[in-house]
Amino acid sequence: MTAGKPIKVAILGATGRVGQELLRVLEERNFPISELRLLASARSKDASIEFKGKRYPVQEPSAEAFREIDIVLASAGEEISRKFVPLAVEQGACVIDNSNAFRMDESVPLVVPEVNGEALRQHKGVIANPNCTTAQLVPALKQLHDLAGLKRVIVSTYQSVSGAGKEAMDELEQQTRALLNGGSHTPTVLARQIAFNLIPHIDKFLDNGYTKEEMKVLHETRKILGLPTLPLTCTAVRVPVAIGHSEAVTCDLERKVSVEQVREAFAASAIIEVVDQPDKAIYPTPIDAAGQDPVYIGRIRIDTSSENGVNFWVVADNLRIGAALNAVRIAEYMLEHDLLRAKAVR
Amino acid sequence: MTAGKPIKVAILGATGRVGQELLRVLEERNFPISELRLLASARSKDASIEFKGKRYPVQEPSAEAFREIDIVLASAGEEISRKFVPLAVEQGACVIDNSNAFRMDESVPLVVPEVNGEALRQHKGVIANPNCTTAQLVPALKQLHDLAGLKRVIVSTYQSVSGAGKEAMDELEQQTRALLNGGSHTPTVLARQIAFNLIPHIDKFLDNGYTKEEMKVLHETRKILGLPTLPLTCTAVRVPVAIGHSEAVTCDLERKVSVEQVREAFAASAIIEVVDQPDKAIYPTPIDAAGQDPVYIGRIRIDTSSENGVNFWVVADNLRIGAALNAVRIAEYMLEHDLLRAKAVR
Repeated sequence: MTAGKPIKVAILGATGRVGQELLRVLEERNFPISELRLLASARSKDASIEFKGKRYPVQEPSAEAFREIDIVLASAGEEISRKFVPLAVEQGACVIDNSNAFRMDESVPLVVPEVNGEALRQHKGVIANPNCTTAQLVPALKQLHDLAGLKRVIVSTYQSVSGAGKEAMDELEQQTRALLNGGSHTPTVLARQIAFNLIPHIDKFLDNGYTKEEMKVLHETRKILGLPTLPLTCTAVRVPVAIGHSEAVTCDLERKVSVEQVREAFAASAIIEVVDQPDKAIYPTPIDAAGQDPVYIGRIRIDTSSENGVNFWVVADNLRIGAALNAVRIAEYMLEHDLLRAKAVR
Repeated sequence: MTAGKPIKVAILGATGRVGQELLRVLEERNFPISELRLLASARSKDASIEFKGKRYPVQEPSAEAFREIDIVLASAGEEISRKFVPLAVEQGACVIDNSNAFRMDESVPLVVPEVNGEALRQHKGVIANPNCTTAQLVPALKQLHDLAGLKRVIVSTYQSVSGAGKEAMDELEQQTRALLNGGSHTPTVLARQIAFNLIPHIDKFLDNGYTKEEMKVLHETRKILGLPTLPLTCTAVRVPVAIGHSEAVTCDLERKVSVEQVREAFAASAIIEVVDQPDKAIYPTPIDAAGQDPVYIGRIRIDTSSENGVNFWVVADNLRIGAALNAVRIAEYMLEHDLLRAKAVR
């Protein structure tokens, strides 16, 4: 995918679910790596991980560990990012951070390359990867905005447990087994039972009654699209699916559109795949999206409740488009446009 | 619950999932029955079913089987209803029909008693029970309309497999077991794999790209609320939950409201229970609702995308509020208001 001189890459949070997906995506896309450092918390420090047939030790993160690194792909949670990202930047590395730590920082570009790659030109060492729910939504919204002007967005999510990490995936599986065998299984990772159930609660509750997840979708979407007052509301729900987030989206538009125009606009995106043949009952579902790169969109139809509106259903692998794949695409964009050193002129 | 002279009751579709729930609800509520006839298709005809400690044979439906019956509770699907409901009415019975067959017929009241019980006064022998998704939505919408005027409704559903019948419940269980054991299980009841997956497809697709289920919610809500032009749009999704439908709802209102006003309005309904303490992470989930009578509402918050809007999350046992319980409540209302014979003056 990317040509050019191989670079030195560190992965912060290499042993986590997204860390593993990062390694898979780097390998699949043959990302040009001259040196790879795998970093994770002390409890993982004796581990080693295979990449392209070679085993790499897992080291603890430290200023030293970032020395001479070109790009850090960070996915170890907000707290770890707050602690180590500044150290990495001080060492001269560019950090593409998956956590929520810097996303709303005005000096940090928040990027889905196909939507607002240009924002990378302004980076000062840290680039933020959006929340998975936002990442798969904005490519569609961008296309609609260009087509007919976005006026308002209403999103209901159906989010898989992998968004809450490996432990949540294990919890879904173990709890499901226990219930099928007539037993019970007390939730320890998620807030409530997830097997054969739904949890309308992702991340913490805020004073306005929304969860942090729901407000992230609002704020991050506005920032990525460059529409700081876009009206948007979100209900975020965890569903008993392993991998793949889905979203039911209603958009009010400035101008009337046809289903055919919307399909064409979506299909024109480099990362969207339209899977939408209602007469043949063809539409995307999360198991189709798991392990795949595209953002899949189906169920496109004219809104029955507004003058110029459209409804659709977006499905994507949240670990890929919502995290690992988007981070690697950001890195590729920076290499292609020679932006790694842009931070030097800050 | 109901006093008065016991009446003769027939259940059409007695062996189905809703038929069984009807018997349970009749027993729980001590509905006054002087004679009970259980009717089901030929393949069930040698079965017998226990009710209040006595076994009843399952008979095939026929004009004869409805003779002298006061109320028929019908839940055997659209085709069976089209065939047998007119026969029952000819025999002088009142039919409370769970199917889609007569819901949009102008001469047939479509009723959730707590919302539009008055409509029962106009019945001509047939009363329709709304679709389960509509039945749990309209009590909330009625309260909001009375509080601040409904302008627009946007609904995303999370519907359990029991809405597709017993076979779909078995399919979810068997498929889940097979997948956990590393095997596979081809769907035969639902359109796609439901275990650890989502299916944005309930009932048939129509020419406008919506499913019949989605359009039912629009048309039935308008009819029940007496708001024939209410703007409403719905996305209906099947989720891997056994019993209990959930809905994420956004309502635009004529006037500004506070969360506290909305909570009070919902709590004032006889059938809604507000379960909404975000600071304590208290909200309804489908496993809490299964087997229970109330419509549970939580996640009440002011819409971040409109001037006067509100978001909420509605959960209910789809077999009860969406079918059996609502049908029995209709029957109770008719007994209480002496409406069984109203049809005689047609």
